[in-house]
Parts: sequence; structure tokens; C-alpha cells
Amino acid sequence: MGEHDDAGTGPIDTATVDTAHLEEILLGRWAETKRVARELLKDPQFHKTENLTKEDHRERTLKQAHALVEANAVHRAFPEEFGGDADHGANIAAFEELVTADPSLQIKAGVQWGLFGAAVMHLGSHEHQKKWLPGIMDLSVPGAYAMTEIGHGSDVASLGTTATYDAATDEFIIHTPFEAATKRFLGNAALHATAAVVFAQLITEGVNHGVHCFYMEIRDEQGNPLPGITIEDDGHKGGLNGVDNGRLRFDQVRVPRTNLLNRYGDVAEGGAYSSPIESPGRRFFTMLGTLVQGRVSLTGAAVAAAKLGLIGAVTYGNQRRQFNATSTTEEEVLLDYQLHQRRLIPRLATTVALGFAHDNLLAKLDDVFSGKDDSDENRQELETLAAAIKPVATWHALDTLQEAREACGGAGFISENRFTSLRADLDVYVTFEGDNNVLLQLVAKRLLADYAAEFKNADVGALASYVANQAGSRVMHRFGLRKALQEVQDTGDERRSANWFKQPEVQRDLLSGRVRQMVADAAGELRHVAKLPPEKQATVFNEHQYQIINAAKAHADLLLWEAFTEGLEQVEHPGTKQVMTWLRDIYALTRIEETLDWYLINGRVSGQRARTLTPYINRLVARVRPHAQDVVDSFGYAPEHVRMEVASGAEQARQDAANEYYRKLRASSDAPVEEKTLLDRKRAQKRAAKKQ
Amino acid sequence: MGEHDDAGTGPIDTATVDTAHLEEILLGRWAETKRVARELLKDPQFHKTENLTKEDHRERTLKQAHALVEANAVHRAFPEEFGGDADHGANIAAFEELVTADPSLQIKAGVQWGLFGAAVMHLGSHEHQKKWLPGIMDLSVPGAYAMTEIGHGSDVASLGTTATYDAATDEFIIHTPFEAATKRFLGNAALHATAAVVFAQLITEGVNHGVHCFYMEIRDEQGNPLPGITIEDDGHKGGLNGVDNGRLRFDQVRVPRTNLLNRYGDVAEGGAYSSPIESPGRRFFTMLGTLVQGRVSLTGAAVAAAKLGLIGAVTYGNQRRQFNATSTTEEEVLLDYQLHQRRLIPRLATTVALGFAHDNLLAKLDDVFSGKDDSDENRQELETLAAAIKPVATWHALDTLQEAREACGGAGFISENRFTSLRADLDVYVTFEGDNNVLLQLVAKRLLADYAAEFKNADVGALASYVANQAGSRVMHRFGLRKALQEVQDTGDERRSANWFKQPEVQRDLLSGRVRQMVADAAGELRHVAKLPPEKQATVFNEHQYQIINAAKAHADLLLWEAFTEGLEQVEHPGTKQVMTWLRDIYALTRIEETLDWYLINGRVSGQRARTLTPYINRLVARVRPHAQDVVDSFGYAPEHVRMEVASGAEQARQDAANEYYRKLRASSDAPVEEKTLLDRKRAQKRAAKKQ
Repeated sequence: MGEHDDAGTGPIDTATVDTAHLEEILLGRWAETKRVARELLKDPQFHKTENLTKEDHRERTLKQAHALVEANAVHRAFPEEFGGDADHGANIAAFEELVTADPSLQIKAGVQWGLFGAAVMHLGSHEHQKKWLPGIMDLSVPGAYAMTEIGHGSDVASLGTTATYDAATDEFIIHTPFEAATKRFLGNAALHATAAVVFAQLITEGVNHGVHCFYMEIRDEQGNPLPGITIEDDGHKGGLNGVDNGRLRFDQVRVPRTNLLNRYGDVAEGGAYSSPIESPGRRFFTMLGTLVQGRVSLTGAAVAAAKLGLIGAVTYGNQRRQFNATSTTEEEVLLDYQLHQRRLIPRLATTVALGFAHDNLLAKLDDVFSGKDDSDENRQELETLAAAIKPVATWHALDTLQEAREACGGAGFISENRFTSLRADLDVYVTFEGDNNVLLQLVAKRLLADYAAEFKNADVGALASYVANQAGSRVMHRFGLRKALQEVQDTGDERRSANWFKQPEVQRDLLSGRVRQMVADAAGELRHVAKLPPEKQATVFNEHQYQIINAAKAHADLLLWEAFTEGLEQVEHPGTKQVMTWLRDIYALTRIEETLDWYLINGRVSGQRARTLTPYINRLVARVRPHAQDVVDSFGYAPEHVRMEVASGAEQARQDAANEYYRKLRASSDAPVEEKTLLDRKRAQKRAAKKQ
Repeated sequence: MGEHDDAGTGPIDTATVDTAHLEEILLGRWAETKRVARELLKDPQFHKTENLTKEDHRERTLKQAHALVEANAVHRAFPEEFGGDADHGANIAAFEELVTADPSLQIKAGVQWGLFGAAVMHLGSHEHQKKWLPGIMDLSVPGAYAMTEIGHGSDVASLGTTATYDAATDEFIIHTPFEAATKRFLGNAALHATAAVVFAQLITEGVNHGVHCFYMEIRDEQGNPLPGITIEDDGHKGGLNGVDNGRLRFDQVRVPRTNLLNRYGDVAEGGAYSSPIESPGRRFFTMLGTLVQGRVSLTGAAVAAAKLGLIGAVTYGNQRRQFNATSTTEEEVLLDYQLHQRRLIPRLATTVALGFAHDNLLAKLDDVFSGKDDSDENRQELETLAAAIKPVATWHALDTLQEAREACGGAGFISENRFTSLRADLDVYVTFEGDNNVLLQLVAKRLLADYAAEFKNADVGALASYVANQAGSRVMHRFGLRKALQEVQDTGDERRSANWFKQPEVQRDLLSGRVRQMVADAAGELRHVAKLPPEKQATVFNEHQYQIINAAKAHADLLLWEAFTEGLEQVEHPGTKQVMTWLRDIYALTRIEETLDWYLINGRVSGQRARTLTPYINRLVARVRPHAQDVVDSFGYAPEHVRMEVASGAEQARQDAANEYYRKLRASSDAPVEEKTLLDRKRAQKRAAKKQ
């Protein structure tokens, strides 16, 4: 039995991390692919260069993309027929690692192969694939994915661009009817794209069949826009300046009818529309289905970036010294300060949680895209899971990179330490491929729908009792408060309280209970909405928007906790398991701490217990503190991936040299005496003189 | 009497904002100076150009700084003898506005005149001023402020650089004894500085008298480093690339004895040290006293940047439409969504609160620096006030610019909308001129010291009863919970609860009660510390670091609330007063909402009241929503200051054109019918056919 600390955090002397073991677990299901990708990305040709104009950065990124083709690094998702591996999980796993080299390269590659190429692959016919995939794969045909318009981003169904079938010439006329319908923010469009897949309202025989996708050439061999096409540059951006984002406008541009990527909707010669999917709504969502790959891969990339940030800040926090707090000759290293631990270690815990959650997400994506389980239900689950985790992951990356940068002080602001550079590049991840708040709203609606479905077949009695429960919620909460008071006796003790909080069942109950009740509360308050006139429906729904978005966030918290807890089962080494369990507890308890008011109001945590939570978390982060370096080392990144001065060991060498200087000085006869010491001495002499 | 809404937020029909009146109030005490500064900064030569290399940006910024000299815009703080105005408040008020042009220009100017020049002015003799101020003021001598070292930032007292007096030649020998003592992050150092003020440990006659400041030339007329001086470039940064930050290393560099800026400490020929301030500690803090100007001006600049962000996001939120929620023909503008209101309007409230708080801070700075009230006590109050508000303001600016950028979606990421650019530049404001967390710790220590002073002269009885109170805190909190339960009767009603929350006395009690109790709790827990051995003292203090930093934040919340409430008194126009009161309430209540768990645990807000708080805030933000544009318009910035496409009205024009297109289409016979409409029609026909 190991020694126990005084707050019930668990045995502490056995807690040593087996970094090789942990690295294997954290690499997850596609460990081997990630290793191959990481090995390639050690090559400096792929690394971001700072202080370039956007023009120079764009050229460099294009070259890097060609180098990826040469290294056979971008073909994993494509059909074997065209030289690919048809391996969707591995494709994303490798793609995500590009962020460690240069996020611009990741996004440029994502546009070319993950969006432009994927549209042809998933929305086109076999003929389309044969005709266009080879050029897309070898980058001889760089292309844009022309979906977003100035006036419509998240609301794709309302795009303004039209594609009207003209039976006279058997062509589609692609047209931008007003300025807000200009395609915007299209990677590759400003400079390099010679083709594009364009999303437009398909109109034939007087009927609008909704948004479909068309393959178009947009530039001639000299790089000039084709007739009727106007191309503009989106200009300099807050980051990702290696990607040439631009705008496309179409003035009655004609393309052959057969350029319609027709897997889910086709127009026959003469204009007759047909589709294997009858419902226009379902057809639309099926066509957008491949977008989920973007969300999954941004999630993984965000986790990778957060890891880099933590490697830098934790390493520096273990070397940089500041203030002489303990009055010994040496100053404290930053990570010995409680606040510094509080700033970095909960973020470390969330990063590990997200890593596990992302691995699950990737496995589900692989199931769906490989056809192993591509049922409608599983596809929807994948969409909902991605919509919940992508927002949390991308916001977390920004938050962690920022805290890591601040934790390194001024050094964190210098580009050679990459925090600001990564943060600037990843900034747009929170609003593209699905705006985070819009995605969370999707999750919330799904939670509400699932909840409603539970009662769909319920008899009237069950429903009545449910409604009564909701109406009586105030009574329940009052009871909650009473219950809290009754618990004062057994929870006044900090250790007992800690023992309660550290139980996985308690954590699960608290996190899942919150989601359930928040959804039930919202459902209860919205239950009459369907009976209202449409305008009033929207108003009432809007009045609950903030509430249901918070329910979606609570749902994401739970998903991450479940993934972390499941991930823990793989850890066999006892010391590693102990440290990882502390981290899981820190993840759970900081989530609960952040929404502690809710738990108190709803009587789920008593006031007495609640007041022990923060001190307990403070003790837990102190427990993990000696192992923080081991955990970040287990992320498995080599110096060629990290490339930060703060993580290079240079600070340790400087501290050692400074210490050595002062040690020698103290040992010599040259050491100047401090004025204060002199003053103290004089005062003592005066007192002594008086006494005589 | 005006109409009252159903939630007691106050009369709503009289609430219209008199923007001219509000603008005058928000401009504050130095309104006229600000107007003059803003007028100058309309000139495009001062505006930031994006997509420059750091080399080009640095040259441009230097040119801009020279243009400021030509415009006589940088002399307000200097003595009248040298052509200045000796007007410290006006100087900072004007200086802060530079951030709207280019933050690099602000910081470059801050280094030259606010740090380098101010050091000569405040730490030097009249002879020093006569010799060096003219060249500093006209920028013929660009200079660096060489304080920070690689190994020591916030802990200035521990700097490693030495200045040893050599009686043989009557010189100081400036030396960098080890690499960590290299001066780093010095604006002007990498390229333009020909001189520097260097902070070093003054050693004479075998005694170290602590950190003093020395004027040194560092480059010759050709721009080469002088012998013994090594200059390096800090390189590309996360922002502010118009400032040439660099490093200085000294290898036994000799400067005349008289180059010591000797106002607070001098060395006579032969080596005798003297100072008008006996205590080395007090002397050190007096010499660092001018640094407070930097903190005050960064606060004001941060508020200005937050205002720009909100102007952009609110204007765009009133024009951009997304999703057709109400099923009318037109989509909703973003700001009609509750979540969007929730994202922007509380930040608007905090920005206004910070504006008032900053105006108070600036008035205090003016009192101190003008000599109107430069007592030690007032100086310390200024330091503490600045240390509390600078962290809140600079973090708030980053948070607001980020939320504003996300609220504009992809458009927020494009540099032409400036959110990302401003955010990148202001990033370092949170760690320079006093790291935010270090400053908050100073505030916390001051709060604890003030608290201890209250009991210094207390008799034993009072102290005993205080200790007993603290020891019995559990009983108190239990009582708190009981009290909360008793309040259920009168607070179950949402309207009564809202009426309670909106009372200024209640808000003050809640915010100030939190600070008082947090400080008392910490003081109680730390009361035995003085009796412990030094190492143990540090350990115990460290275990409370997170807690006391939170107390300092609570103190800042209160300061802002008080400033806002005081500011409200200037508002005479009733409608404006109503809107501003709602904003003040939103500021107070979102602060309370964020730490609601504390109020619940400590029995200061009952569970029943607590659950009405978020819905009440949601109603308040909806009340302010129609006036949000008026409030941001009252910030008084012209299009030349805002310079954002999203705030230009272009989006409104695009929306109008799109609407017009659809209106015409609907009116014409060409309008395609939606497939869904067609399907519904067919189904209806089928049903009709069956019936027949």
C-alpha cells in the first residue's frame, strides 16, 4: 500500500508515469499512421516560416503541398483504383498532424483533398472520379470548394447562387444574382485554383431542387479567370496567410449538364430531375454529409495544437524561476506556484480528455465512411458527436495556447515560441466548417428531439406525470436545498467530501444529471411551442437559446468525461493510472466547479460540499504537478515538431549559468554586501552600543 | 409614467439614447484632448498597414513617430521649459488614442517618450533633462528602456546587470555577468535606438545599493553598436511588429559617473553613495513609480480597442442576416438572436464600466504627477488602483475583440476588419508593464495589509472576537443557508426577485460583501503565517494564492461597478439614463452570475433568487438590444478610426440588394417553385383524389 496524502487524493508514492506506455495510449487507434505522418513532418521544408508577406507564404504553402504529393502523404482517403488506400480514419489521423508543421499547409491540403477532392469523390459519379480525381490527387488541378457566400455561411440551404438548366444547349447556367451571393473565403481561389466545385440552387423545368454541387473550370492555362468569372482576393487574414482565400462571382457562366456531381440528384437531357432520395431535406443533408470530415479533423488538429502549447508552457514552467518566495538562495520555478498549476494543469486534463474523445469520434467516422456502419442513425450520431466536440476542442485550443503564451510572459509573445502564431492560425477554426455556436445549437436540438422521442409512445399517464414533475420543479428544488442541509453532518469533513467527489459514479451522476435536467427543463418550457403561430414559435425558442446552448455544452462535458474514463481502462501501469485518474478527476471537478451555481441551485451538491471543491482541486493539481512534464512528454512530439525556444532547454542552461555565477560570487571575497544587510548591521551595533 | 415591461426592468418607452450627450460623458474629463488627438489620427499616414514584413512595418512606424513630433503631439507630459505642457493627464489621454491608428505606433511612442524620456525626466537631475530631453522629444535620439532581462521580468529587484563604480576613472562599469541578465524585449533596441536608460545593480565601495538607472549611448552615428555592447533582434512577434524589440548585452562598458540618473540615489566622486530616501526598499519603489503611467495608458488603450471591436460587431450584428427563424420572407439580423445579445451586450456594459473606471484612474494619476496630491498614500492608492484595473481592462480587450471577431464569422477573421489585428497587437498588453497576475497579487497583498491594519490598534477583545468569527465561519454559512430558505416565500416571484437585483444598494452589498469576506477568510487562514519559519510561510501563502488572486479580481469588479454608478450621476437625459442604468445592472449582475456559486455557498443569495438571475439578465440584454447601436455610436469614433468593412454599411447595401432581387423574383412569373412546395401540393392532390 502506498502512502496516502491527507486529503484522500490516493496513493502518491507509486505515482510515476511510464511515458512510453502512456504515449502509446494517447496516440490512440491510428498510432502507426500518426508516427509515419510525424516522421515526415520533421522535414524543415514543411515548417512554417514567420515574417513572410502573404504572397511569399502562399507560394511556400503551395510548394509544401506539392511536396506532400511527392511524399505520397495525401492519398489515404481516395479509392484504391486511383492509387489511394480507401482508409478514411487513417487519412484524417495523418492529416491532423499537418497542423504541427504549418496550419496553412493543413488547411490548403484540406481544401484540395478534403473538400474539393472529397466532393468529387463523394458527390460525383464513377465517371467524374475517373475524369477528375487523378488531377486533384497529384495537384495538377488545384481547386476551390465554393460553398460559402458573403451573405450565407452556416445557412447553406439559403445560398443565392443559381444553376439553371438550359435545355436548348444542354447546359447549366451558373449565376451570381446579387453581391451577397458572391462566393467568399474560398481557399485556393485567390491564386492557385484552376477549377472549383460550386454549390448552387439547381433549377430545372421551373422547379428549384435546392443546393447541388457543380464542377467548373475557373482559370485558363495562363491563370486568368475564364469568361464570366470574376475572382477577387480576400486579402490578408488574422492567420493562415499561406492559404489564398478568394471570392468568385459568376455572370451567366455555362457548364455542360454532365458537370453536375450527380450522385444524389441528376438532371437528364431535356431537364427531368431525378434523385435516389425523395425528401429534399434529407437529400440536402446527405450531400453535406462529407463536411463532417472537416469537423472531425479540425478537432484533432485543435488537440494537437493544444498539446504543443502545453509542452512549451509546462517545460518552461519547470525551468524559469521567478521571485525568491522561500528565502532560500534559489528562486522558485514557475510551476511551483499554485496559480501557475491552476492555469496549466486543468487545461492539460481537458486536452487529454479531448484526445480520447477525438479518438472515439475518428473511429465512428471510419465506421461510417468505410461502410462498416453507415446506417442513417450512425451517420446522425457521428454528426451530433462532431457538432458537440468540434466547438469544445477548437475553443479549448485557443484558450490553452493563450494561457500557455501568457504563462511564458514576454517570451510567449515572440514568434519563435509559436504560441501566438498557432493561436492566430487556429482562430478561424472556431467559426469555419460550422460555426461553433451554430453547431452547439444543432446538438441542443438533437438533445431536445431525443428527449421528445422518449415520450412519443408514452401513454397519457406517463406524460401527465412528466408535465406535473416539470411544473413542480420548484418543489423539487426546495427539496434539493433541504437535502443539502441534511448532508451538513457528513460533509463538513473535507476528506469525506473529497472521497465523495473522487468517485467516478458521483462524477458521472453529476455531469449526466445536469444534461438530463437541463434538457428536461428546456423541453418542459418549450412544450407548448408547437401550438403557437410560427413567428411566436421562433420568439419563444429564441428566448431559450442561451439555455439550450448551455445544455449542449454540458452534453459535451459529459462526452469528454466518458471518453477519458473509458480511456483510463487501457492504462495498466499503476503509477500512470494514478496520475491519469487524478487528471480525469481534475477534468470532471473543474467542469463541475465552473457550473457549481447550477448544482447548488438544483440541490445536487450541498453548500458544505461545494465549499470543499475548490480546495480539493487545488490539492489535486499540486499532486499532478510533479508529473506534468511526464504527461506532456508522453504526447510523443519530437523537438522537430515542437520547435519552441522555451521548450529547448535553453532556459535551464541560462538558469544554471546564473546560479553558478552567484555561487562563485558568494564563495569569493569580491561579493558586494547588500545595503539592507549593512543597515541592519549598523542598527544592531547602535543597539549594542546603547546597552553598554 | 412610461410603460413597464413585465419583469420590472424599468420604463421602456422613454428609453432613447441622446448620443451627443452620452458621447460627452463617455469622453470623460479629457474630452477636448481626446478630440484633438482623434482629429490628428484621422490622417491615413498613421494607420496600420497589414501584410508588411517586420522590417517594412518598423520603418513605417518610425516615420509615423517622426510625424507625431511634427504634429506636436508628443510633448504634453514634458516640462514647459522644454516646450512641453507639463500636463500628465492630457498626455496619457492623447497617447491612448494612438491605439486606434496602429498599436505599434502607440508602443513605439510609449517607449520613446513614456519610458525612455520619462526616466530621464523623473529620475534625472535638471542637468540631465537639459542635456538629453530635447533630443528625446524631437526623436533625434531614439532610445530604449533597458529594464527587463531574459531571467527577470516582473521581479525587477533581482536584475542581474551590474553597474560597478570605479573610483580610478570616476566611471561606472556596466556589465552583463551571465546570459540570463541579457536585456530583452526592449522596444527601439533592435534597430533605431542610439541611446538607452539601463537598469542595473549599483555597486560602490563594496556595497550593492540595488537597482538604479543609467543613461548610455549604445550606437555610433553609423548605427553600429558601441564597443562592448552586443545587440540582437528579438525577431518576429505575435503582434506589434512595427516595434523593433531587441536585446542588449554589456561587456564591461564604461560610462561617466554623471550618467547615473541621480534624483533618488547618487554617487559622489570617489564613490560615496547618498540618497534622499533612506530605506532601500522605498527608494526602489519610488524609482519604479513612473511605471504606473504605462499601466494607466495601457488600460485606456485597451478600453479604446474594446470599443472598436464592439462598434464593428454591433453594427454588423444589426445588418447581417442569418437563418429564417420566424418564417417570414426575411431572415433575422444576428443581434435579434438571444445568444448574440448575450455575447455582445454584457461586454458592452463592461466596456462602459471600464471607461468610467479608467477616467477615475487617469484623474488620480494627474493628481499625483501634477503634484496636486503626490502624498505617499495617494501614490500607493494610484499604484493599487492601476494594478487592479490594468489586468481587467487588458484581458477584457482581448476577450471582447475575440468575441466580436467570432460574432462576425469568417468576416471577423479578415484583416480588413481589424479584430484579429488589434487582438494580436494587444495580446502582450496582458503581460507587459506588469504581468496581470503579478499585479493582481500586489492588489491582494494590499487588501490583506489594509485588513490587518484595521486590527493593528484593536484591543485584544476585538481581535479575539474576530478570530472566533473566522473559526466559526461554518456556523455562519450554515446560518446563511437557513436564511436563504426563509427567503423562499418572498423570492419565488420572478418580478420581486428582479426588483431586488436591480437595486444599486443590493448590487453594492453583494459585490463589496464578497471582497470583504474573501479578504477576511484569507486573512483568517493566514493569521498564523508570521509565526512560521520562512520556507513554511511561503508554502502556506502559496496554498492561498489562487484564493487571494480571486479576491483581487472581486475587488476590481467592485471598483468598476462604483465607477459606473458614479458615472451614471452625470447622465441627465432620462432615456439615456434608463439605458445606461440597464447597462450598469447588466455589468453588476453578470459579475454576480459568474461567481454565483460563491454567493450561494456563503448564503448571500438564496437558491430561489439565484435561479431568477440568468433569466433576468437575458431580459435586460433584450431591453438594451434596440439601443446597442446608439451606445457604440456614442463612443465618438469616426469612420477614419473604425476602418472596418463590417462597420461600413456595405453589408446593409448587400442585404438590401438581395432583398430587392427576391422581391422582384417573387413578383415575376419566372420565380421557380420550390421542390418541397411541389411535393406538398402533389400529396394534397393525392389525398383529394382518394377522397373522391
